[in-house]
Amino acid sequence: MLKKDNPVTYICTSTEDAIFIRDKNLVEDLVGKMTFTEMLLFHLLKQPPTEMQTVIVDAVLITIMEHGLTPSAIAARETYLGAPESLQGAVAAGLLGVGSRFAGTAGDCAVLLEEIVGVPESEKSGVATAIVQRHRKTKTPVPGFGHPIHKKGDPRTPRLVEIAETVGARGDYIAAMHLLSEAMDEEFGKHIVINVSAAIGAVLCEAGIPATITRGITLVSRCAGLVGHLLEEMEEPSATYLWHLAEEKIPYAGEAGK
Amino acid sequence: MLKKDNPVTYICTSTEDAIFIRDKNLVEDLVGKMTFTEMLLFHLLKQPPTEMQTVIVDAVLITIMEHGLTPSAIAARETYLGAPESLQGAVAAGLLGVGSRFAGTAGDCAVLLEEIVGVPESEKSGVATAIVQRHRKTKTPVPGFGHPIHKKGDPRTPRLVEIAETVGARGDYIAAMHLLSEAMDEEFGKHIVINVSAAIGAVLCEAGIPATITRGITLVSRCAGLVGHLLEEMEEPSATYLWHLAEEKIPYAGEAGK
Amino acid sequence: MLKKDNPVTYICTSTEDAIFIRDKNLVEDLVGKMTFTEMLLFHLLKQPPTEMQTVIVDAVLITIMEHGLTPSAIAARETYLGAPESLQGAVAAGLLGVGSRFAGTAGDCAVLLEEIVGVPESEKSGVATAIVQRHRKTKTPVPGFGHPIHKKGDPRTPRLVEIAETVGARGDYIAAMHLLSEAMDEEFGKHIVINVSAAIGAVLCEAGIPATITRGITLVSRCAGLVGHLLEEMEEPSATYLWHLAEEKIPYAGEAGK
Amino acid sequence: MLKKDNPVTYICTSTEDAIFIRDKNLVEDLVGKMTFTEMLLFHLLKQPPTEMQTVIVDAVLITIMEHGLTPSAIAARETYLGAPESLQGAVAAGLLGVGSRFAGTAGDCAVLLEEIVGVPESEKSGVATAIVQRHRKTKTPVPGFGHPIHKKGDPRTPRLVEIAETVGARGDYIAAMHLLSEAMDEEFGKHIVINVSAAIGAVLCEAGIPATITRGITLVSRCAGLVGHLLEEMEEPSATYLWHLAEEKIPYAGEAGK
Repeated sequence: MLKKDNPVTYICTSTEDAIFIRDKNLVEDLVGKMTFTEMLLFHLLKQPPTEMQTVIVDAVLITIMEHGLTPSAIAARETYLGAPESLQGAVAAGLLGVGSRFAGTAGDCAVLLEEIVGVPESEKSGVATAIVQRHRKTKTPVPGFGHPIHKKGDPRTPRLVEIAETVGARGDYIAAMHLLSEAMDEEFGKHIVINVSAAIGAVLCEAGIPATITRGITLVSRCAGLVGHLLEEMEEPSATYLWHLAEEKIPYAGEAGK
Repeated sequence: MLKKDNPVTYICTSTEDAIFIRDKNLVEDLVGKMTFTEMLLFHLLKQPPTEMQTVIVDAVLITIMEHGLTPSAIAARETYLGAPESLQGAVAAGLLGVGSRFAGTAGDCAVLLEEIVGVPESEKSGVATAIVQRHRKTKTPVPGFGHPIHKKGDPRTPRLVEIAETVGARGDYIAAMHLLSEAMDEEFGKHIVINVSAAIGAVLCEAGIPATITRGITLVSRCAGLVGHLLEEMEEPSATYLWHLAEEKIPYAGEAGK
Repeated sequence: MLKKDNPVTYICTSTEDAIFIRDKNLVEDLVGKMTFTEMLLFHLLKQPPTEMQTVIVDAVLITIMEHGLTPSAIAARETYLGAPESLQGAVAAGLLGVGSRFAGTAGDCAVLLEEIVGVPESEKSGVATAIVQRHRKTKTPVPGFGHPIHKKGDPRTPRLVEIAETVGARGDYIAAMHLLSEAMDEEFGKHIVINVSAAIGAVLCEAGIPATITRGITLVSRCAGLVGHLLEEMEEPSATYLWHLAEEKIPYAGEAGK
Repeated sequence: MLKKDNPVTYICTSTEDAIFIRDKNLVEDLVGKMTFTEMLLFHLLKQPPTEMQTVIVDAVLITIMEHGLTPSAIAARETYLGAPESLQGAVAAGLLGVGSRFAGTAGDCAVLLEEIVGVPESEKSGVATAIVQRHRKTKTPVPGFGHPIHKKGDPRTPRLVEIAETVGARGDYIAAMHLLSEAMDEEFGKHIVINVSAAIGAVLCEAGIPATITRGITLVSRCAGLVGHLLEEMEEPSATYLWHLAEEKIPYAGEAGK
């Protein structure tokens, strides 16, 4: 760790005729030689990714790009209505809702999986049970479990696991996720759905993505999703309609005029 | 065009056991079957992209992801310093600077290239000259030309053109870019560098990306770049140093204490 | 104007025992001696405001603070739903919609009023007519005129004018606004409502606020309004309801499942 | 508490000729009859504020509006450089840094003061000591204490206390702040400066502002400060200079070119 008062960067430098990203020549080594996802991983991991890493991250990025008219998509479209001069403002407004409530659970679950993976095999099951119990005690939901719509099972979860296994992930975090699921079912006396968030946490750990930057992967994916929503908003606007709907369906209930 | 008071969306729908993006089943048709860039293009173009489109967009996304400690990266890092609880806030702050001044020129140049492509072959050269002249008259820079550092040529420009041509782009917009460049050189009496922005405008047109959403491609790419900067900021912080540097080097010049 | 490569600031400096804002000692001269609005004006105008300036700006700040469940308030509330850890993110999302479409018209109208005020008395009426005609020719709405709800007159307009006149504004810009209104009515052959935006543009000009920063006044006012909406969202949440309403009323109309 | 599936708003409603904010007619009862701060408090507290409340909140808003080239001001200026078309984007970027690290301490300290105020007189001192001890045990700084520059005392702290006392605050939270300060000094064996954040937490509690919305007061004040910075950036730009300074002083330390 370099001293704070003498900081450096390892990301990028330029000369009159070349640009370097980390130790690579942008034009000669990177452009036209990689996919976006490989470049993103090279940027985050500081070395070219393995195929396993790329396949997993591509699968995650595709899985969470879109979920229709989410709160985040609504914020982006309403912002575009007021400020059509600034596409970046509408995208930024949408990303600001990618916070702890919905998007943060993958990273939170990853931290729990690391806790299980970090102990010897014989203790893993006990740690999983302890995790569930301490969440119940404080009435905190265990991140990554349960789903309001996909009540019989989140279809994305087994697919992400299957992809990670096919491409050669070691499987430690996926196994930890299943242990945590078993502990959930035992503690609650019924099956609790493994949400896609748990699977995302597990497979990104398998791919070696630091838990501190998990939310960054989500932000990149949602950024793409929001651009798609804004293009639809230009072609098929719904923001004005939704605004008027809000005014009608969330009525004023104060004292004025009474 | 549907009526405004009865809006619909074509993006996404869910059932209890499936999620659909446009007409595809997310889990069965998309996850594990595409790269991120193919999914982004499917989202924007409403149909699976051709290889030509994917290769061009990957090349553009990689080209503009990083340029070191840009104003946008500085804004993201300084925001993270004050609000480490909100990675999304730091990314959003960085994206808010992806505006008309630096990032907008690719889209602005694309509009000029469309103007040239839209006329018969025999008139193209005249239109290019007219474009340069009308910009000179109002002392407006022609978007996509000149570079403060790469004075002998922007190395990214020929690389993007080469990739687009190799992968089978028709070349109409690239040809228009070269016509505009010739008109620039003739009008100014010297060679003016073709900035990577012009090349991005040209190759995204070749790939069929609507000019209205060009900036969206930039936002996705920069979003990834900013996540990389924030990971570096966590590991090698420079925001406090830069803050103190600003206080020292941009001194107070008011009346107090005089 | 100082050279770009040697910038300074006139805003603030500190010693071990004092903080200075411009030429004043924060603790001794400002805190407890002014209202917020006087401080805002001191910050923008670099000298303590007159009573006329303060009264006008207070009136404007109050007039535009709230208009219920606007697109901007919806964006803030939906963002808070996803990221309750970041109040600043929800406020920022709301402010990002304070753009050219609704909020920008006051500043745009101010520019037109400056155009009228800038010519001799005898020419003012002709300039007002020319402004209306050139907007009609390009089918651009004249900023500050018309209102979808207050069809017989915007009640805020005469009130702002009355306040400005009572407190001693010279009245040049208010007169220009009335001339522009007369030109509108004559050109369109019927009375067009003078929107509060025109009045805001006029009275802020009377108060000597630079047109370049008019939108800044709006942002401060709306920032306060958004904080109020977020407090209501904590106490009486409506964001989840509106999200579900959006999913129900803006249905998926694609091919999936057909 | 109304049911979630039937939400209402108490903030605003309109008719063809009037606008109501809560139970008041905007034009007849509010515009021209209040200062901005009174209106802000009416919005948050749902009733017209007392003079005590207004004076305290004005003092707080003025105290924290400006502190020069802070990380937040730098983010706003760098964002404006890239996106001059969107003043709202630059202000939003600046507000996004008003987070837990610097701005959040006032609200965090307020929570501790409420803890002390909530117990009988005879137990208050013990609670204060317990608070300090539990923070030391987890090596967490006590919010609102210490200052890197004002080492002999933050000049803003006694001024805010003086104003609150002069205007008739009961003084319970101010007394709690002093108890906490005594506990700090005793535990650490030396005097620790009472930061302005502690004073802000205390006096806003005296004024009856809910701790959940304390940060909202900060956001309104900083919004005004940021508008002032952006006006200076238009007149005396420093963002480009700071960008080049960052590139020069935070050098690339990677492998390229070695």
